[in-house]
Amino acid sequence: MKAGDMIVTSSIPELRQWRWQQPAASYGFVPTMGYLHEGHLSLARRARAENEFVVVSIYVNPTQFAPTEDLSSYPRDLERDLALLRGEGVDLVFAPDDALMYPPGFQTYVTVEQATQGLEGASRPMHFRGVTTVVAKLFNLVQPTRAYFGQKDYQQSVVVRQMVADLNFNLEVVVCPTVREADGLAMSSRNKYLTPPQRQAATVLSRTLRHGLVLLDEGERNGRTLRAAMQGMIEAEPLARLDYISVAHPITLQELEQVGDQAVLSTAVFIGKTRLIDNMLWQVREA
Amino acid sequence: MKAGDMIVTSSIPELRQWRWQQPAASYGFVPTMGYLHEGHLSLARRARAENEFVVVSIYVNPTQFAPTEDLSSYPRDLERDLALLRGEGVDLVFAPDDALMYPPGFQTYVTVEQATQGLEGASRPMHFRGVTTVVAKLFNLVQPTRAYFGQKDYQQSVVVRQMVADLNFNLEVVVCPTVREADGLAMSSRNKYLTPPQRQAATVLSRTLRHGLVLLDEGERNGRTLRAAMQGMIEAEPLARLDYISVAHPITLQELEQVGDQAVLSTAVFIGKTRLIDNMLWQVREA
Repeated sequence: MKAGDMIVTSSIPELRQWRWQQPAASYGFVPTMGYLHEGHLSLARRARAENEFVVVSIYVNPTQFAPTEDLSSYPRDLERDLALLRGEGVDLVFAPDDALMYPPGFQTYVTVEQATQGLEGASRPMHFRGVTTVVAKLFNLVQPTRAYFGQKDYQQSVVVRQMVADLNFNLEVVVCPTVREADGLAMSSRNKYLTPPQRQAATVLSRTLRHGLVLLDEGERNGRTLRAAMQGMIEAEPLARLDYISVAHPITLQELEQVGDQAVLSTAVFIGKTRLIDNMLWQVREA
Repeated sequence: MKAGDMIVTSSIPELRQWRWQQPAASYGFVPTMGYLHEGHLSLARRARAENEFVVVSIYVNPTQFAPTEDLSSYPRDLERDLALLRGEGVDLVFAPDDALMYPPGFQTYVTVEQATQGLEGASRPMHFRGVTTVVAKLFNLVQPTRAYFGQKDYQQSVVVRQMVADLNFNLEVVVCPTVREADGLAMSSRNKYLTPPQRQAATVLSRTLRHGLVLLDEGERNGRTLRAAMQGMIEAEPLARLDYISVAHPITLQELEQVGDQAVLSTAVFIGKTRLIDNMLWQVREA
């Protein structure tokens, strides 16, 4: 298929008709909020490699933003996004608007309970309700074989996996590694908000998490000690304001008093008004 | 297909494999809690007429019962149900158990907001959350073309339609007329609970609703007057205890002060310990 053949649509009937022309084919799906970076493109590439058809959605979902958050200023550049996706051989881009996704009278929500209580869920109430609701809608619209998410939003990947298992969605959730800038900063559409000094300061997230991994490798297993050490590193950066630092179980997301053979280290930090998140997984090495 | 060919399974992989052998065929789906009566069979028959394959689920869903309700005593007779469904030419019966539907760690719920506030939702808090959650699961398991519900559970049909629209389920909801005994009693698995005198008294529901229709046909449009007249009829039956009587808009389910050109009359009544519901739709006649 030539790159120019990529379909761009905001029509549900067009999407469905295309999807069901080859009902038994495999469809990879990458839901995004646009303003694509290398992280998103790595998902599209993985989907391209694993499926006969690839669908990417671009939709800045209002129900996952709190009124105080950056919905209106969230960066958008559809033309650039489409050019990038053409370059990855994507077959169809679904780019709906709010009137299509949340028509008057909309009143149905999907909620995941325990997995959304801590971390991002604690800092951003209703955030995950918005995520799971729009992802359920997109899953039902695209009906993909596999859906691709980045590890960068680690809790989101856990919550989506839980939703897929609990509601018996007929698809596989694939979580792909976080893509980073050369200096370690996790790629994020929100990095665009950073001034040059803030951009420099933002490396504190990945430096802190890596330090946590080193402490774990050196044998530290006490959750409180690990969190305190990492918190100290964040607080040493004058442009950073800590939201949370976590040493949790990678599946249950429960904070760990004592680390066993695996953990997820995660943090949310304000750099100026920009809220950044990052995480790293740790596993004990085989003896 | 011979009647004996009906597949009965509680295996998700077996269900999915069967469903996706003919991915583009049409599948009619009738979700039930078993103990089937002529109402259920009318749904199966309609599904049989309109689709290449017919799936019926039999599952007494615990999340739609309150702790005080009749989950443990809800009537069950799987062998009889299967014989009836074989007679209707059903292709596959999905009969899962609680461990399959709600495994340890289950934590995801689908909620419909406004449409679940009144009527059954007011009398049975959490009921519809259980209904929409299990129906979403079953939809994702069966992935039907059309799903069939009885008008007897009128609010349920409104709530399910809303969920299907809001979450973009790729299927059509078909609502079929209530099937009644000769004396007007709406068929219900719970009618089995009634003693002979209670069974006699239970006709008060349909008699009352029919009286409401007559009043509307005669020109009465005041909601309060209509509710009072119907309430009086229920209260005149010594074995009956009124839960609610409603004159509402058939789509929004909002109680009407003044009836326009359509309404749904509905009621819930305890006959002894058995709670029965019924409803009738009214539309103004063309002049």
